[in-house]
Amino acid sequence: MAPTRLIRFVSKTDNQVYYGHATNNSLSEAKVLEPGNPFFSAPTTNSSSHPVGRLLGPLARDDCRGIICIGLNYRDHAEEAKMAIPTIPVVFHKPITALSGPYDDLKIPRASWEKGALDYEAEEASRVSESEAAGYIYGYTAGNDFSNRTWQLDPTLSGGQWCLSKSFDSTAPIGPAIVSGDLLPDVSTDSGLTIRATLNGEVMQDSSTSQMIFSPAKLVSFLSQAMTLLPGTLIFTGTPAGVGLGRNPRVEVKEGDVLDVEIQGIGKISNHVVYEK
Amino acid sequence: MAPTRLIRFVSKTDNQVYYGHATNNSLSEAKVLEPGNPFFSAPTTNSSSHPVGRLLGPLARDDCRGIICIGLNYRDHAEEAKMAIPTIPVVFHKPITALSGPYDDLKIPRASWEKGALDYEAEEASRVSESEAAGYIYGYTAGNDFSNRTWQLDPTLSGGQWCLSKSFDSTAPIGPAIVSGDLLPDVSTDSGLTIRATLNGEVMQDSSTSQMIFSPAKLVSFLSQAMTLLPGTLIFTGTPAGVGLGRNPRVEVKEGDVLDVEIQGIGKISNHVVYEK
Repeated sequence: MAPTRLIRFVSKTDNQVYYGHATNNSLSEAKVLEPGNPFFSAPTTNSSSHPVGRLLGPLARDDCRGIICIGLNYRDHAEEAKMAIPTIPVVFHKPITALSGPYDDLKIPRASWEKGALDYEAEEASRVSESEAAGYIYGYTAGNDFSNRTWQLDPTLSGGQWCLSKSFDSTAPIGPAIVSGDLLPDVSTDSGLTIRATLNGEVMQDSSTSQMIFSPAKLVSFLSQAMTLLPGTLIFTGTPAGVGLGRNPRVEVKEGDVLDVEIQGIGKISNHVVYEK
Repeated sequence: MAPTRLIRFVSKTDNQVYYGHATNNSLSEAKVLEPGNPFFSAPTTNSSSHPVGRLLGPLARDDCRGIICIGLNYRDHAEEAKMAIPTIPVVFHKPITALSGPYDDLKIPRASWEKGALDYEAEEASRVSESEAAGYIYGYTAGNDFSNRTWQLDPTLSGGQWCLSKSFDSTAPIGPAIVSGDLLPDVSTDSGLTIRATLNGEVMQDSSTSQMIFSPAKLVSFLSQAMTLLPGTLIFTGTPAGVGLGRNPRVEVKEGDVLDVEIQGIGKISNHVVYEK
């Protein structure tokens, strides 16, 4: 059986890195999962319980087989961006090197921060464990589709393609846990889950996953028509209204800022922005 | 020392799959490389020589850490597409599930062929082995950035993003070998390497890598400013003039067609187009 609250962590007991099943909501204790990669084969929980030292991203880069992102998938964000509601999901990819942990510093490469216009995008991320079948979602986590609007929107830099602006190292922090759908209400129903982003403690995005145009299940089905979804594939399902680009006056993320993304029932990631020099 | 002509193959001797160093130009015999993944650690050539049964893609999907593609990187193709010569490389990504072998059937998902407009793009692909240093290129291979122009260019399907149209399974056949730069002249000099695509034997693209706007070394340097290039990263460096979309009358690839891409000094891939039904 898949763990309902999957984490990856450094154990306080032996200082080793493990995937684990968190035995409490505060993620302070976990049972170690064996074998090492729980996405490729059904893990068994080890009897030993470890106190959690540091929480790492719940999907290790070596175990990640791709990051697929969906653009404009929240009604309120499509309206804010003054874009038509898509009838087909808008797809782009991030490289696996963009992955970051839930509390890691976001180390922004010079090529990104030199152009300014850094922006956050609170996202829910689905982890797909099986695909060739009917598209089984392993669980849900919180993510930040960290973007550089200059690289995204200046046609002389992007050629109209969003990929590079969202491919910089550190642009995909996720965590703190991958939570099984069994522990969550339907993310796409009227009530949905609260999804919120704060910048230095100030609320910037405050919406609900019920604003999603295409539900996670629909996205998995749609994407699987085009490409095989390997275990270890992460899907960023879109961001709600309130991004810096859509605010008046416009908000840009700067060095030293702290960005939090919190989703009801999943938890909060919190990342400090550091410029690489 | 890295092998100068790296292949992956099924051995006629024992029917096992190996990475190997081809000991002749026809790739009919190879020395087996150990350990299994030659991109992460320097391989040693095993003394045993194996007759090559079937040639597989020279980079296994499990060893691939990403596929980065560069749009509009040939002068003659930018002119054919009536686009300005880019001053910055246009970047997009393919998922690793797009990888195919040099002679594999291209099994086109229904979601792609139902919309028609299939097109080839002969490309040279660089394999980057080290990155955090100055960007070391492991070698070069031939590739076909197989595209669906309806999914690429209809804004109601793509939202203006090219990724999905180039992410279908089978859209990245590569091979037959990864050839060390030591065996090739400078790909970006005036003479360059001949790069050619044929459709059912008829020449469609016939150009030179000297048409490249950004050389492989420049691309590696540019990309590494934004993202860490892990060993196992494949870079599709752009396609020259003559794509089906640019021809008059326009050419579309159909079920049963055979597409070859050949690069001087590297070899030829040849793929048969099959519709998944």
